[in-house]
Amino acid sequence: MQPKSANIFETEGTVDRARRAELMGSAAATLWFTGLSGSGKSTLCFAVEQALADRGVSTYVLDGDNVRHGLNADLGFSPEDRTENIRRIGEVCRLFHDAGMIVLTAFISPYLADRAAVRALHPEGGFHEVFVDTPIEVCEARDVKGLYAKARAGEIPEFSGISAPYEAPVDPELRIDTAEAELDECVERVVAHLIEGGTIPA
Amino acid sequence: MQPKSANIFETEGTVDRARRAELMGSAAATLWFTGLSGSGKSTLCFAVEQALADRGVSTYVLDGDNVRHGLNADLGFSPEDRTENIRRIGEVCRLFHDAGMIVLTAFISPYLADRAAVRALHPEGGFHEVFVDTPIEVCEARDVKGLYAKARAGEIPEFSGISAPYEAPVDPELRIDTAEAELDECVERVVAHLIEGGTIPA
Repeated sequence: MQPKSANIFETEGTVDRARRAELMGSAAATLWFTGLSGSGKSTLCFAVEQALADRGVSTYVLDGDNVRHGLNADLGFSPEDRTENIRRIGEVCRLFHDAGMIVLTAFISPYLADRAAVRALHPEGGFHEVFVDTPIEVCEARDVKGLYAKARAGEIPEFSGISAPYEAPVDPELRIDTAEAELDECVERVVAHLIEGGTIPA
Repeated sequence: MQPKSANIFETEGTVDRARRAELMGSAAATLWFTGLSGSGKSTLCFAVEQALADRGVSTYVLDGDNVRHGLNADLGFSPEDRTENIRRIGEVCRLFHDAGMIVLTAFISPYLADRAAVRALHPEGGFHEVFVDTPIEVCEARDVKGLYAKARAGEIPEFSGISAPYEAPVDPELRIDTAEAELDECVERVVAHLIEGGTIPA
Protein backbone atom coordinates (compact mmCIF):
# COMPACT_ATOMS: atom_id res chain seq x y z
CA MET A 1 0.00 0.00 0.00
CA GLN A 2 1.49 3.26 -1.14
CA PRO A 3 0.85 6.43 0.83
CA LYS A 4 -0.92 9.06 -1.25
CA SER A 5 1.78 11.52 -0.39
CA ALA A 6 4.84 9.53 -1.33
CA ASN A 7 7.07 12.52 -0.67
CA ILE A 8 5.73 13.28 2.77
CA PHE A 9 9.16 12.83 4.31
CA GLU A 10 11.02 14.99 1.85
CA THR A 11 9.36 18.31 2.34
CA GLU A 12 10.65 19.32 5.74
CA GLY A 13 11.28 23.00 5.83
CA THR A 14 12.05 25.17 8.78
CA VAL A 15 11.47 28.82 9.20
CA ASP A 16 14.81 30.58 8.99
CA ARG A 17 16.26 32.98 11.52
CA ALA A 18 15.54 36.14 9.52
CA ARG A 19 11.86 35.25 9.16
CA ARG A 20 11.66 34.41 12.87
CA ALA A 21 13.09 37.85 13.71
CA GLU A 22 10.48 39.48 11.44
CA LEU A 23 7.67 37.58 13.16
CA MET A 24 9.01 38.26 16.65
CA GLY A 25 9.93 41.91 16.19
CA SER A 26 13.39 41.21 17.57
CA ALA A 27 16.38 38.99 17.10
CA ALA A 28 16.81 36.05 19.46
CA ALA A 29 18.82 36.51 22.63
CA THR A 30 19.45 34.79 25.93
CA LEU A 31 19.99 37.29 28.74
CA TRP A 32 21.55 35.31 31.56
CA PHE A 33 21.34 37.25 34.82
CA THR A 34 23.73 35.91 37.44
CA GLY A 35 24.37 37.20 40.94
CA LEU A 36 23.93 36.53 44.63
CA SER A 37 20.64 35.84 46.34
CA GLY A 38 18.99 39.22 46.89
CA SER A 39 21.02 40.96 44.20
CA GLY A 40 17.86 41.86 42.30
CA LYS A 41 17.99 39.43 39.38
CA SER A 42 14.30 38.47 39.28
CA THR A 43 13.04 41.99 39.86
CA LEU A 44 15.27 43.29 37.09
CA CYS A 45 14.26 40.48 34.71
CA PHE A 46 10.55 41.10 35.17
CA ALA A 47 11.02 44.85 34.84
CA VAL A 48 12.97 44.34 31.60
CA GLU A 49 10.26 41.98 30.35
CA GLN A 50 7.64 44.65 31.02
CA ALA A 51 9.73 47.38 29.37
CA LEU A 52 10.23 45.22 26.28
CA ALA A 53 6.52 44.35 26.12
CA ASP A 54 5.83 48.11 26.17
CA ARG A 55 8.05 48.30 23.08
CA GLY A 56 6.14 45.48 21.40
CA VAL A 57 8.79 42.83 21.99
CA SER A 58 7.93 39.39 23.38
CA THR A 59 10.19 37.90 26.00
CA TYR A 60 10.01 35.22 28.65
CA VAL A 61 11.56 34.99 32.10
CA LEU A 62 12.82 31.67 33.44
CA ASP A 63 13.23 31.69 37.20
CA GLY A 64 12.98 29.39 40.17
CA ASP A 65 9.21 29.62 40.26
CA ASN A 66 8.55 28.24 36.80
CA VAL A 67 11.54 25.87 36.60
CA ARG A 68 12.22 24.43 40.05
CA HIS A 69 8.59 23.37 40.47
CA GLY A 70 8.29 21.95 36.98
CA LEU A 71 11.07 20.86 34.65
CA ASN A 72 13.60 20.55 37.47
CA ALA A 73 11.29 19.41 40.25
CA ASP A 74 13.31 16.19 40.45
CA LEU A 75 16.53 18.02 41.32
CA GLY A 76 17.87 18.97 44.73
CA PHE A 77 20.75 21.23 45.72
CA SER A 78 23.75 18.91 45.64
CA PRO A 79 26.60 20.16 43.45
CA GLU A 80 25.63 17.61 40.75
CA ASP A 81 21.99 18.63 40.88
CA ARG A 82 22.88 22.33 40.75
CA THR A 83 24.95 21.70 37.64
CA GLU A 84 22.15 19.63 36.07
CA ASN A 85 19.68 22.39 37.01
CA ILE A 86 21.71 24.98 35.11
CA ARG A 87 22.38 22.59 32.23
CA ARG A 88 18.67 21.98 31.64
CA ILE A 89 17.84 25.67 31.96
CA GLY A 90 20.59 26.38 29.45
CA GLU A 91 19.11 23.83 27.04
CA VAL A 92 15.68 25.42 27.42
CA CYS A 93 17.26 28.81 26.68
CA ARG A 94 18.78 27.33 23.55
CA LEU A 95 15.33 26.12 22.44
CA PHE A 96 13.75 29.53 23.08
CA HIS A 97 16.68 31.16 21.29
CA ASP A 98 16.22 28.78 18.37
CA ALA A 99 12.54 29.74 18.35
CA GLY A 100 13.61 33.35 17.87
CA MET A 101 12.72 34.67 21.31
CA ILE A 102 14.43 36.83 23.87
CA VAL A 103 14.61 34.79 27.07
CA LEU A 104 15.79 36.13 30.42
CA THR A 105 16.97 33.94 33.27
CA ALA A 106 17.21 34.75 36.96
CA PHE A 107 19.33 32.13 38.71
CA ILE A 108 22.30 32.59 41.04
CA SER A 109 24.25 30.18 38.79
CA PRO A 110 27.42 30.55 40.87
CA TYR A 111 29.82 28.47 38.79
CA LEU A 112 31.87 29.83 35.90
CA ALA A 113 32.01 26.43 34.22
CA ASP A 114 28.23 25.99 34.26
CA ARG A 115 27.66 29.43 32.73
CA ALA A 116 30.38 28.83 30.14
CA ALA A 117 28.67 25.58 29.18
CA VAL A 118 25.38 27.42 28.62
CA ARG A 119 27.15 30.08 26.56
CA ALA A 120 28.64 27.33 24.43
CA LEU A 121 25.14 26.06 23.56
CA HIS A 122 24.37 29.35 21.83
CA PRO A 123 25.49 30.70 18.50
CA GLU A 124 28.13 33.46 18.66
CA GLY A 125 26.59 36.62 20.08
CA GLY A 126 23.39 34.91 21.21
CA PHE A 127 24.28 34.65 24.90
CA HIS A 128 24.48 37.79 27.02
CA GLU A 129 25.80 37.40 30.55
CA VAL A 130 24.40 40.08 32.84
CA PHE A 131 26.32 40.25 36.10
CA VAL A 132 24.02 41.65 38.78
CA ASP A 133 26.94 42.82 40.86
CA THR A 134 25.18 44.09 43.97
CA PRO A 135 27.53 44.02 46.99
CA ILE A 136 26.88 41.14 49.33
CA GLU A 137 26.36 43.56 52.25
CA VAL A 138 23.44 45.08 50.35
CA CYS A 139 22.02 41.66 49.45
CA GLU A 140 22.32 40.57 53.06
CA ALA A 141 20.78 43.79 54.38
CA ARG A 142 17.81 43.26 52.05
CA ASP A 143 17.48 39.57 52.94
CA VAL A 144 13.97 39.56 51.54
CA LYS A 145 13.48 35.84 52.02
CA GLY A 146 15.39 35.63 55.30
CA LEU A 147 17.88 33.28 53.66
CA TYR A 148 21.04 35.12 54.74
CA ALA A 149 19.96 34.95 58.38
CA LYS A 150 19.40 31.22 58.01
CA ALA A 151 22.72 30.79 56.19
CA ARG A 152 24.58 32.71 58.94
CA ALA A 153 22.86 30.49 61.51
CA GLY A 154 24.15 27.46 59.64
CA GLU A 155 20.67 26.34 58.66
CA ILE A 156 21.46 26.45 54.94
CA PRO A 157 24.61 24.41 54.48
CA GLU A 158 25.68 25.59 51.00
CA PHE A 159 24.70 29.19 50.46
CA SER A 160 26.43 31.01 47.62
CA GLY A 161 28.60 33.85 48.91
CA ILE A 162 28.42 32.69 52.54
CA SER A 163 29.19 29.00 52.82
CA ALA A 164 29.62 28.16 49.13
CA PRO A 165 31.50 29.98 46.40
CA TYR A 166 30.05 32.51 44.00
CA GLU A 167 32.33 32.74 40.99
CA ALA A 168 31.85 36.20 39.54
CA PRO A 169 31.80 36.62 35.76
CA VAL A 170 35.17 37.64 34.33
CA ASP A 171 34.01 39.46 31.23
CA PRO A 172 30.21 39.78 31.27
CA GLU A 173 28.36 41.56 28.46
CA LEU A 174 26.78 43.81 31.09
CA ARG A 175 27.44 44.59 34.76
CA ILE A 176 24.73 46.13 36.90
CA ASP A 177 24.81 47.08 40.57
CA THR A 178 21.22 47.50 41.73
CA ALA A 179 22.43 49.38 44.82
CA GLU A 180 23.96 52.09 42.66
CA ALA A 181 21.01 52.92 40.45
CA GLU A 182 17.22 53.00 40.52
CA LEU A 183 15.40 50.08 38.93
CA ASP A 184 14.34 52.19 35.94
CA GLU A 185 17.96 53.09 35.21
CA CYS A 186 19.01 49.44 35.47
CA VAL A 187 16.26 48.48 33.04
CA GLU A 188 17.32 51.23 30.65
CA ARG A 189 20.88 49.91 30.62
CA VAL A 190 19.67 46.46 29.58
CA VAL A 191 17.38 47.90 26.92
CA ALA A 192 20.20 50.13 25.62
CA HIS A 193 22.47 47.09 25.42
CA LEU A 194 19.89 45.25 23.31
CA ILE A 195 19.46 48.24 21.00
CA GLU A 196 23.22 48.71 20.60
CA GLY A 197 23.66 45.07 19.66
CA GLY A 198 20.82 45.22 17.16
CA THR A 199 18.69 42.70 19.05
CA ILE A 200 15.72 45.09 19.22
CA PRO A 201 14.91 48.20 17.17
CA ALA A 202 15.74 51.60 18.73
CA MET B 1 23.86 50.09 54.14
CA GLN B 2 20.53 50.80 52.48
CA PRO B 3 20.05 50.01 48.81
CA LYS B 4 19.13 53.09 46.81
CA SER B 5 16.11 51.27 45.45
CA ALA B 6 14.60 50.04 48.65
CA ASN B 7 11.55 48.73 46.84
CA ILE B 8 13.43 46.74 44.24
CA PHE B 9 11.78 43.54 45.39
CA GLU B 10 8.25 44.80 45.38
CA THR B 11 7.78 45.77 41.78
CA GLU B 12 7.59 42.39 40.10
CA GLY B 13 5.10 42.50 37.27
CA THR B 14 4.52 39.98 34.59
CA VAL B 15 3.07 40.48 31.18
CA ASP B 16 -0.43 39.04 31.13
CA ARG B 17 -1.80 36.51 28.69
CA ALA B 18 -3.84 38.99 26.66
CA ARG B 19 -0.81 41.20 26.07
CA ARG B 20 1.29 38.16 25.15
CA ALA B 21 -1.32 37.16 22.56
CA GLU B 22 -1.24 40.70 21.11
CA LEU B 23 2.54 40.60 20.86
CA MET B 24 2.59 37.10 19.38
CA GLY B 25 -0.28 37.49 16.94
CA SER B 26 -1.87 34.32 18.32
CA ALA B 27 -3.01 32.72 21.53
CA ALA B 28 -0.74 30.15 23.13
CA ALA B 29 -1.21 26.49 22.26
CA THR B 30 0.61 23.20 22.55
CA LEU B 31 -0.06 20.96 19.56
CA TRP B 32 1.03 17.50 20.63
CA PHE B 33 1.40 15.21 17.61
CA THR B 34 1.43 11.54 18.58
CA GLY B 35 1.66 8.52 16.32
CA LEU B 36 3.82 5.64 15.17
CA SER B 37 7.27 5.96 13.72
CA GLY B 38 6.81 6.91 10.07
CA SER B 39 3.29 8.24 10.57
CA GLY B 40 4.35 11.67 9.36
CA LYS B 41 4.45 13.64 12.62
CA SER B 42 7.61 15.63 11.95
CA THR B 43 6.80 16.38 8.34
CA LEU B 44 3.36 17.59 9.32
CA CYS B 45 4.72 19.69 12.20
CA PHE B 46 7.25 21.48 10.02
CA ALA B 47 4.70 22.02 7.27
CA VAL B 48 2.27 23.51 9.80
CA GLU B 49 5.05 25.71 11.17
CA GLN B 50 5.74 26.99 7.66
CA ALA B 51 2.05 27.57 6.95
CA LEU B 52 1.65 29.53 10.19
CA ALA B 53 4.78 31.59 9.49
CA ASP B 54 3.22 32.46 6.12
CA ARG B 55 0.26 33.79 8.12
CA GLY B 56 2.55 35.83 10.37
CA VAL B 57 2.33 33.49 13.34
CA SER B 58 5.43 32.34 15.24
CA THR B 59 5.65 28.72 16.28
CA TYR B 60 8.32 26.29 17.31
CA VAL B 61 8.70 22.56 16.69
CA LEU B 62 10.16 20.30 19.35
CA ASP B 63 11.35 16.99 17.95
CA GLY B 64 13.99 14.36 18.52
CA ASP B 65 16.65 16.41 16.78
CA ASN B 66 16.52 19.40 19.08
CA VAL B 67 15.59 17.59 22.29
CA ARG B 68 17.25 14.17 22.32
CA HIS B 69 20.66 15.70 21.55
CA GLY B 70 20.29 18.52 24.05
CA LEU B 71 17.93 18.72 27.01
CA ASN B 72 17.38 14.97 27.12
CA ALA B 73 20.81 13.81 25.98
CA ASP B 74 21.22 12.07 29.33
CA LEU B 75 18.20 9.82 28.76
CA GLY B 76 18.05 6.42 27.12
CA PHE B 77 15.09 4.33 26.00
CA SER B 78 14.16 2.40 29.14
CA PRO B 79 10.50 2.80 30.16
CA GLU B 80 11.55 5.19 32.97
CA ASP B 81 13.69 7.24 30.62
CA ARG B 82 10.94 7.37 28.01
CA THR B 83 8.54 8.68 30.62
CA GLU B 84 11.09 11.23 31.84
CA ASN B 85 11.73 12.24 28.22
CA ILE B 86 8.06 13.03 27.67
CA ARG B 87 7.75 14.67 31.10
CA ARG B 88 10.57 17.13 30.35
CA ILE B 89 9.25 17.85 26.87
CA GLY B 90 5.84 18.49 28.43
CA GLU B 91 7.38 20.91 30.92
CA VAL B 92 9.15 22.73 28.09
CA CYS B 93 5.81 22.95 26.26
CA ARG B 94 4.27 24.44 29.38
CA LEU B 95 7.03 27.11 29.45
CA PHE B 96 6.54 27.94 25.76
CA HIS B 97 2.79 28.02 26.34
CA ASP B 98 3.27 30.32 29.31
CA ALA B 99 5.42 32.52 27.07
CA GLY B 100 2.43 32.82 24.73
CA MET B 101 3.73 30.72 21.87
CA ILE B 102 2.32 27.97 19.73
CA VAL B 103 4.59 24.97 20.14
CA LEU B 104 4.32 21.74 18.12
CA THR B 105 5.81 18.45 19.22
CA ALA B 106 6.66 15.40 17.13
CA PHE B 107 7.26 12.42 19.40
CA ILE B 108 5.77 8.92 19.23
CA SER B 109 4.80 9.32 22.92
CA PRO B 110 3.10 5.91 23.02
CA TYR B 111 1.67 5.99 26.54
CA LEU B 112 -1.74 7.43 27.43
CA ALA B 113 -0.62 8.23 30.97
CA ASP B 114 2.40 10.24 29.81
CA ARG B 115 0.30 12.30 27.41
CA ALA B 116 -2.39 12.82 30.04
CA ALA B 117 0.29 14.11 32.41
CA VAL B 118 1.44 16.63 29.83
CA ARG B 119 -2.14 17.73 29.20
CA ALA B 120 -2.56 18.26 32.95
CA LEU B 121 0.35 20.73 32.95
CA HIS B 122 -1.61 23.04 30.66
CA PRO B 123 -4.51 25.35 31.38
CA GLU B 124 -7.89 24.14 30.09
CA GLY B 125 -7.95 24.29 26.30
CA GLY B 126 -4.22 24.89 25.99
CA PHE B 127 -3.26 21.34 25.01
CA HIS B 128 -4.31 19.93 21.64
CA GLU B 129 -3.64 16.26 21.03
CA VAL B 130 -3.20 15.53 17.33
CA PHE B 131 -3.38 11.82 16.61
CA VAL B 132 -1.43 11.10 13.44
CA ASP B 133 -3.38 7.94 12.78
CA THR B 134 -1.58 6.56 9.77
CA PRO B 135 -2.03 2.76 9.49
CA ILE B 136 0.98 0.79 10.63
CA GLU B 137 1.18 -0.95 7.23
CA VAL B 138 1.71 2.44 5.63
CA CYS B 139 4.28 3.48 8.23
CA GLU B 140 6.10 0.20 7.76
CA ALA B 141 5.97 0.45 3.96
CA ARG B 142 7.48 3.93 4.17
CA ASP B 143 10.13 2.85 6.69
CA VAL B 144 12.14 5.96 5.87
CA LYS B 145 14.77 5.30 8.52
CA GLY B 146 14.79 1.51 8.10
CA LEU B 147 13.62 1.13 11.70
CA TYR B 148 10.74 -1.24 11.01
CA ALA B 149 13.06 -3.63 9.21
CA LYS B 150 15.40 -3.56 12.21
CA ALA B 151 12.50 -3.98 14.62
CA ARG B 152 11.18 -6.99 12.67
CA ALA B 153 14.69 -8.44 12.74
CA GLY B 154 14.69 -8.05 16.50
CA GLU B 155 17.47 -5.46 16.45
CA ILE B 156 15.33 -2.84 18.20
CA PRO B 157 13.95 -4.53 21.33
CA GLU B 158 11.15 -2.13 22.21
CA PHE B 159 9.66 -0.62 19.10
CA SER B 160 6.24 1.01 19.46
CA GLY B 161 3.61 -0.86 17.46
CA ILE B 162 5.83 -3.89 16.83
CA SER B 163 7.42 -5.08 20.05
CA ALA B 164 6.10 -2.41 22.43
CA PRO B 165 2.62 -0.95 22.82
CA TYR B 166 1.33 2.17 21.16
CA GLU B 167 -1.65 3.40 23.13
CA ALA B 168 -3.80 5.36 20.70
CA PRO B 169 -5.51 8.54 21.90
CA VAL B 170 -9.09 7.98 23.00
CA ASP B 171 -10.51 11.43 22.33
CA PRO B 172 -7.89 13.54 20.54
CA GLU B 173 -8.64 17.13 19.51
CA LEU B 174 -7.69 16.16 15.96
CA ARG B 175 -7.15 12.91 14.06
CA ILE B 176 -5.20 12.88 10.83
CA ASP B 177 -4.31 9.97 8.56
CA THR B 178 -1.46 11.07 6.31
CA ALA B 179 -2.15 8.14 3.98
CA GLU B 180 -5.64 9.45 3.26
CA ALA B 181 -4.83 13.02 2.31
CA GLU B 182 -2.12 15.09 0.71
CA LEU B 183 0.22 16.96 3.03
CA ASP B 184 -1.37 20.31 2.11
CA GLU B 185 -4.79 19.03 3.12
CA CYS B 186 -3.43 17.71 6.41
CA VAL B 187 -1.86 21.09 7.13
CA GLU B 188 -5.10 22.86 6.28
CA ARG B 189 -6.98 20.72 8.79
CA VAL B 190 -4.60 21.74 11.57
CA VAL B 191 -4.80 25.41 10.57
CA ALA B 192 -8.60 25.21 10.42
CA HIS B 193 -8.66 23.68 13.89
CA LEU B 194 -6.59 26.59 15.24
CA ILE B 195 -8.86 29.14 13.57
CA GLU B 196 -12.01 27.46 14.85
CA GLY B 197 -10.68 27.47 18.39
CA GLY B 198 -9.69 31.12 18.16
CA THR B 199 -5.98 30.39 18.59
CA ILE B 200 -5.09 32.24 15.39
CA PRO B 201 -7.04 34.80 13.37
CA ALA B 202 -8.91 33.55 10.28
